[in-house]
Amino acid sequence: MSVHAFTLYDMLVRNARIYGERPAVIHSRGHLSFRDFLARIDALALGLAALPLSKGERVGILAQNHPAYLELYGACARLGVIAYPLNWRLTTEELSRIVERAAPRLLLVDDSTSGLVADWPQTRPEIAYWYTLGNATTPGCTPFETLYHTGGTAVAPAVAPDDPFAIIATAAVDVIPRGAVLTHSNILMANLQTMALMGLNETDVNLVALPLFHVAALGAALATMHAGGANVLMARFEAHPAVAWIDTYDVTYLTSFPPVLTQLLDAAEQVGSWLPSLKYVAGLEGPEAMARLHAQTAAEFWTGFGQTETSGFVTLQRVVDHPGSAGKVAPLCQIRLVDEADREVPSGTPGEILVRGPVVFQGYDGQPEVTAHTLRGGWHHTGDVGRLDDEGYLYYVQRKPEKALIKPGGENVYPAEVETVILELQGVTGVCVFGVPDTQWGEAIKAVLEVPTTHTLTVEQVREYVGSRIARYKRPQWVEFTDALPRNTAGLVDREAVQARWGVGVGG
Amino acid sequence: MSVHAFTLYDMLVRNARIYGERPAVIHSRGHLSFRDFLARIDALALGLAALPLSKGERVGILAQNHPAYLELYGACARLGVIAYPLNWRLTTEELSRIVERAAPRLLLVDDSTSGLVADWPQTRPEIAYWYTLGNATTPGCTPFETLYHTGGTAVAPAVAPDDPFAIIATAAVDVIPRGAVLTHSNILMANLQTMALMGLNETDVNLVALPLFHVAALGAALATMHAGGANVLMARFEAHPAVAWIDTYDVTYLTSFPPVLTQLLDAAEQVGSWLPSLKYVAGLEGPEAMARLHAQTAAEFWTGFGQTETSGFVTLQRVVDHPGSAGKVAPLCQIRLVDEADREVPSGTPGEILVRGPVVFQGYDGQPEVTAHTLRGGWHHTGDVGRLDDEGYLYYVQRKPEKALIKPGGENVYPAEVETVILELQGVTGVCVFGVPDTQWGEAIKAVLEVPTTHTLTVEQVREYVGSRIARYKRPQWVEFTDALPRNTAGLVDREAVQARWGVGVGG
Repeated sequence: MSVHAFTLYDMLVRNARIYGERPAVIHSRGHLSFRDFLARIDALALGLAALPLSKGERVGILAQNHPAYLELYGACARLGVIAYPLNWRLTTEELSRIVERAAPRLLLVDDSTSGLVADWPQTRPEIAYWYTLGNATTPGCTPFETLYHTGGTAVAPAVAPDDPFAIIATAAVDVIPRGAVLTHSNILMANLQTMALMGLNETDVNLVALPLFHVAALGAALATMHAGGANVLMARFEAHPAVAWIDTYDVTYLTSFPPVLTQLLDAAEQVGSWLPSLKYVAGLEGPEAMARLHAQTAAEFWTGFGQTETSGFVTLQRVVDHPGSAGKVAPLCQIRLVDEADREVPSGTPGEILVRGPVVFQGYDGQPEVTAHTLRGGWHHTGDVGRLDDEGYLYYVQRKPEKALIKPGGENVYPAEVETVILELQGVTGVCVFGVPDTQWGEAIKAVLEVPTTHTLTVEQVREYVGSRIARYKRPQWVEFTDALPRNTAGLVDREAVQARWGVGVGG
Repeated sequence: MSVHAFTLYDMLVRNARIYGERPAVIHSRGHLSFRDFLARIDALALGLAALPLSKGERVGILAQNHPAYLELYGACARLGVIAYPLNWRLTTEELSRIVERAAPRLLLVDDSTSGLVADWPQTRPEIAYWYTLGNATTPGCTPFETLYHTGGTAVAPAVAPDDPFAIIATAAVDVIPRGAVLTHSNILMANLQTMALMGLNETDVNLVALPLFHVAALGAALATMHAGGANVLMARFEAHPAVAWIDTYDVTYLTSFPPVLTQLLDAAEQVGSWLPSLKYVAGLEGPEAMARLHAQTAAEFWTGFGQTETSGFVTLQRVVDHPGSAGKVAPLCQIRLVDEADREVPSGTPGEILVRGPVVFQGYDGQPEVTAHTLRGGWHHTGDVGRLDDEGYLYYVQRKPEKALIKPGGENVYPAEVETVILELQGVTGVCVFGVPDTQWGEAIKAVLEVPTTHTLTVEQVREYVGSRIARYKRPQWVEFTDALPRNTAGLVDREAVQARWGVGVGG
């Protein structure tokens, strides 16, 4: 092992030694100290190694937030096994496409998700091991708790900081989500940046209310843990329990995407709490929700620009420092804004945001060509367009049209994916899906369908069909029909013209 | 260039962009903004490249603190040229030994140091380029200012984070100081650790009063710079000007080794300042000086364990958090305490401190065997003995006897080096040099000489001889004579017996 090595598991060993009895993980039935947490991880690593699972193999996790989720991340880190968290809001068909690419050897489900993959233990022999966190016995699944072995000492394979730690599904630009490969070093560097910028330390308590399959939730949890703080795990966000937990556990930090903050502040108002322990809320929210946070509590909203492909934040700031901006580039990142030919644009001019630095991912799992293109010229091409002012503040502008992305409630919805489904509907000859502003969710999905004047499709039929084929959060909130979408000379739908005509006044 | 690359020069480019007009370097004749500082570095890199100096070649710096010192570090970082700072308190002979090993292509001197190497431009043709920061014309030296070229754009060679950035002379265990090779990544990781632990940010102002050839001063300067703060450069520490500068520039941070803090607090008391801007004093000091700091100002003393070989701190804490301890292990370090056979010792038992992580140096320049031995088993063997308590606090115990080190005023003095010189004196048949506690300097040097009963040597002769051969700070403060040093069965001086007999009651 190199004298320079330091992995996520090494961080957990360090923390068990120096934060011993302090709480690492708090959940609905109690808490785990840093020492207990490491002991659970070591026991789980023993069990995984005995299956056997080997370095480089993958473990799929399809579960709501739970201490075992973080323990499994820790055991994977120890063994060099790669964690592959899965979004439980996807449909069976979407999960199936991801799992085919991910090729996990083990899949962990819970009561809330086992129904999604009910017949898989029979039909997918390539997944050798099936475990459940559920209380109910799931056919074909073994209780996860049986994997925690004690008494032996696993001989852990040598894991290096540049080995993959997790693969996180993202960027369904080409319909099937790509898997962003993140190494130990990627995550540790992201942790240090967050610790340095926000000043996290062992007195911080992070409420993990967003799902742990998101890089935002995972990043906040691991940065808090690295700093010696505690993570309070909610299975999933619910506003009133979140208020109660914040006040009970003196939560200082949480991550938020619409509509989390608004619902939380509503609930806090109803029970008469001003959430006195809260110091940092980080994420993306509308100006109104952020203003309410600042008026109603003593916490500060932190925002930035980041992606799964950059292990989280690339820029980060307190919103009050420069309202409207995504902040300045983080301590271990370089950014460049370029035109279509990768030439740097002058300050003030929008350009694609390129990123370089130790937080940039290793590539898309199993997609060397897409990876090479995305990382061409030694820079990660984010597909996001921004502009920089003379002081170095970044302003987010939009996704590049060909990588268009809609973010309802912090989820990633790729128009191409929704359009592919809508085109399956009989009589639809063209479609354009795009995002429109939405006060509750930040952004909502709108679809404009090209159909014959004689068509009989209803808005509800379109919504229901999309929701039956892909995750329900991908259903268009707004649907309109036209007999002729504007097209360019090549016959392709002219997205700008569609949005110019149908993008303003969402109902009309 | 790798998409993950981030070097010290990249940090300077980032900072020029986001901290633009904020002060980066403040000195006796004005200040440089981050933008100006980068412009000076780029101009200097142009001049160095034109000499030519190439990637991997070395630049020796023998100068008091000066903006050009930091600019030269920056230009070296851009070109992949290796900075080799030299201690100006050494004698010509000591410098000569170091420079022979260092093999710089360029040497930079100033008015205070040019006399030390006055005839070298004539006698050392292997050093191709001679420059001076001095006002006076030094024979054979060109004014350094002429190296700053403008107008062109140097094509910088590709520099990687794992390329050497600096070599810092340390550890004269075997008489000639070894050169610890530190990479860009080493320094950047040290910066992030310091930023995260101390909470440095762009409002911080660091007084660089200790010499920039020390890792402590260099590390504090670069961490402050990385965080966007300003560095106030004093040519060398003087107490009254230091107080004035602290109050003028609202200094928040300084590094201190005995007798700096005591002299500073004396001076502050005399002028009636309680140094209101000061927040952090980091380094090593006696309990009395630290207590005075806490009583007399609002600043907190931070202490830890570290070495040049670990790019600075490995543990760090506020002294008030756990008085007497060196703190807990930093976020990117692992430590182990081991016995002579590299077996881990139980908590509470003293053992040699081993370190692993991205701040560990690359090895001793040109000494592969010593390097392999020091880094054996994938751990850096520090030569320092400590113990850990159950909470993970590290306590410093002593240097390993064979690597004994005396630290008068934060300087490293190796007994072997002083003993070698004393043995040159006629009639001396044995000698033992060791450290004794000293209220002003933290530690003082004591020498016990074995001489015939008929000897005529005086204490002053011994001190003067040592001071003429090696740096004056290496002169023994205390000298005693005996006609028979205790020896073991092998005939070697029994150091423990010597210290037991002569180590207590320094005068007697």
